[in-house]
Amino acid sequence: MHKLESHLCFGGTQEVWAHAASSTSCEMRFSVFLPPQSQNARCPVLYFLSGLTCTEQNFINKSGAQRYAAEHGLIIVGPDTSPRGAGVPDAEGDDIGLSAGFYVDATQAPWSAQYRMHSYVTQELPALIEAAFPATDVRGITGHSMGGHGALICALRNPGRYCSVSALAPICSASRGWGRKAFPAYFGENPDTWRQWDACDLLRASEDRLHLLVDQGDADPFLKDKLQPDLLREACIEGGHTLDLRMRPGYDHGFYFVASFVGDHIAHHAAALKSV
Amino acid sequence: MHKLESHLCFGGTQEVWAHAASSTSCEMRFSVFLPPQSQNARCPVLYFLSGLTCTEQNFINKSGAQRYAAEHGLIIVGPDTSPRGAGVPDAEGDDIGLSAGFYVDATQAPWSAQYRMHSYVTQELPALIEAAFPATDVRGITGHSMGGHGALICALRNPGRYCSVSALAPICSASRGWGRKAFPAYFGENPDTWRQWDACDLLRASEDRLHLLVDQGDADPFLKDKLQPDLLREACIEGGHTLDLRMRPGYDHGFYFVASFVGDHIAHHAAALKSV
Repeated sequence: MHKLESHLCFGGTQEVWAHAASSTSCEMRFSVFLPPQSQNARCPVLYFLSGLTCTEQNFINKSGAQRYAAEHGLIIVGPDTSPRGAGVPDAEGDDIGLSAGFYVDATQAPWSAQYRMHSYVTQELPALIEAAFPATDVRGITGHSMGGHGALICALRNPGRYCSVSALAPICSASRGWGRKAFPAYFGENPDTWRQWDACDLLRASEDRLHLLVDQGDADPFLKDKLQPDLLREACIEGGHTLDLRMRPGYDHGFYFVASFVGDHIAHHAAALKSV
Repeated sequence: MHKLESHLCFGGTQEVWAHAASSTSCEMRFSVFLPPQSQNARCPVLYFLSGLTCTEQNFINKSGAQRYAAEHGLIIVGPDTSPRGAGVPDAEGDDIGLSAGFYVDATQAPWSAQYRMHSYVTQELPALIEAAFPATDVRGITGHSMGGHGALICALRNPGRYCSVSALAPICSASRGWGRKAFPAYFGENPDTWRQWDACDLLRASEDRLHLLVDQGDADPFLKDKLQPDLLREACIEGGHTLDLRMRPGYDHGFYFVASFVGDHIAHHAAALKSV
């Protein structure tokens, strides 16, 4: 594991690290913001999962999250969005392959060898963070777009592993929305396999009852065809989950939207994580 | 003039525009953040000048300034850092030519025809902003690195035009620091011509008394050779200006530093601009 970047920011430190990851059989990068409070005590960790086309950089450059994490004493960890490097499979288009890992463990060749972001994000990375940084094992998870889908499925497939879940403009039902191209490639043609990685299907089947905070811009150009918050609303009602879905008039899908509301999400997670 | 981007952000609107600029004889882009207060009343304007290698995008993507501008009801305008386009002269290196306009009016060929960022930033752009947007003619100016130099010389060469001035990690004496390559190219070999565009020389000669707010990271790798805040301190003492120079332990030169302190600068300008 080696440090690539370290910058003071709002009294804490924004770092970027690289390490040889076994889940994905490649070098992975991740960002970690260490708030000032972590100099004196272990802090809970909020995982932020990014969207299509992003790396570990976009969120730390553009969201302004460090200010809120420093206020609340949360560590924020941001993994990359797919395996990368020589030999890692890719395909045409932004919504499959590199930068489009969808936080799943693929089962179909050629993807299955390295597109194992679910294992990486839920197991390998937290184990590393909790061993190498002043972090507790109290975890929250959130994300944007594909990363919102990721946050939901990580929480739903791993009951008890995250104390809080939220999402910004999530892909609510990847198999019916923005994952329609990636899911058949990663899992094959049988739709039953897709349901195991689709947040809406998982919400219907879950025995856990989640309390979800979701923000969504109503001027988001991907709203109806690719994000589908109406499906999330229905699935939460059917599954008995609490959903605080806040439609934000006039906001689009980009980082100006994320920056505007990430402070609310960090406050939401801080309240949950610090009460454990 | 045409709009290239418009995004809701913290209840206001982050826009990017392009227009045919007469000062620089090319199309220029600028960013403008319109706070929510500007829907009902004209607001004062803070000009933010960016550093070497930047365009009008870096500050609006990375600083998080919109949150503070929305709180205080300030419009923030961010011009590009040089003329651009087919036929605009350039030279080897990051510190001359494209993205390195230094907010001066060059006098030497081939630069003198279009490298007229001083006229653009202090005259043409404010006239356009005050005609086309809900802006008053109450102006503040700030900037980062080369843009900090720009803010200082714009205020010093145009007494009464700006009600408040500040800078983040400014090039304090361009002719002795980070402008050592650009200044002879833009103004010729006679150092007397450089002094007319050097903040420290202008501070010594100014009849106005400025109250300057400056933040500077003490782990900034450009501190001693290229930024030289010690020269600024001396020039302010000699010229009788008030300087609040805050050395920030451990901070470097990048946007994590800018993001950490831009809120203080916006509050400083808001207090001055709203008391006019």
